Amino acid sequence: MHIRTARPEDAPAIWSIIEPVIRAGETYTLDRDMIETDALAYWLGPDKETFIAEEDGTILGTYYMRPNQAGGGSHVCNCGFMTGADATGRGVARRMCEHALAHARSRGYKGMQFNFVVSTNERAVHLWQKLGFEIVGRLPLVFHHPVHGYVDALVMFQAL
Amino acid sequence: MHIRTARPEDAPAIWSIIEPVIRAGETYTLDRDMIETDALAYWLGPDKETFIAEEDGTILGTYYMRPNQAGGGSHVCNCGFMTGADATGRGVARRMCEHALAHARSRGYKGMQFNFVVSTNERAVHLWQKLGFEIVGRLPLVFHHPVHGYVDALVMFQAL
Repeated sequence: MHIRTARPEDAPAIWSIIEPVIRAGETYTLDRDMIETDALAYWLGPDKETFIAEEDGTILGTYYMRPNQAGGGSHVCNCGFMTGADATGRGVARRMCEHALAHARSRGYKGMQFNFVVSTNERAVHLWQKLGFEIVGRLPLVFHHPVHGYVDALVMFQAL
Repeated sequence: MHIRTARPEDAPAIWSIIEPVIRAGETYTLDRDMIETDALAYWLGPDKETFIAEEDGTILGTYYMRPNQAGGGSHVCNCGFMTGADATGRGVARRMCEHALAHARSRGYKGMQFNFVVSTNERAVHLWQKLGFEIVGRLPLVFHHPVHGYVDALVMFQAL
């Protein structure tokens, strides 16, 4: 598995990964009916560095990194990770997050913050904990899950 | 003191309130050198409802309200409040926040979240607590304060 900066020609493959995640509406606070143009403009926006994980020419996952805040908060980064539906269980998210942590350090970021980890996304919560993140906040019932109804979201943080 | 929706012609007065706060860089994660056009586009952006507090024709403070997240997080709002330098200590922030809580309820929001209350802004922290907000997260050293260096920020939340 190889991780590299996303290129414009990766857009269709990235869309094939992020569309099902957006449509499911279970893990990201994005409009579930977001159209392709808007979703790609978001995921590949000029405020972000976007990466893809690929193996044998197939894109398995993608992530972005950006400053979590401007001004006095710009030394902490934020990332979003999505793995292709066909690639789950192969350690793609772990590899992308390890890459992100190393990349963030190389960029001089002093911390990485996830602002909104849906509490029912236990797989992600456990993975982030294994990779050194701590739960620094619990937001009560702030996410309306299409299956579970109103559930908490977590703020997770790691100093770098 | 009267609170009403901001109008285009309020822009110069709003700028006179928000410019010193942005330049000070002690409470908001906005670029300290943000230019007027960008700052007003942010504060009066189409994603926000913006209000002003006025007394005898003078604008004393301003606040905005917006959904804190899209999709499954859009039932929680976020607000930002700024009081004019000449109007501190007169309960302007309290009045604006009380107005915001009532307005948010009328809009059907189920919660109000402040994502980044700088911990050294004790006056704000105490006021929000008095008005029913709880600290639901503490973000370690995520704010670089121009005087105090790296300090924590708080996530504060109130169910509506």
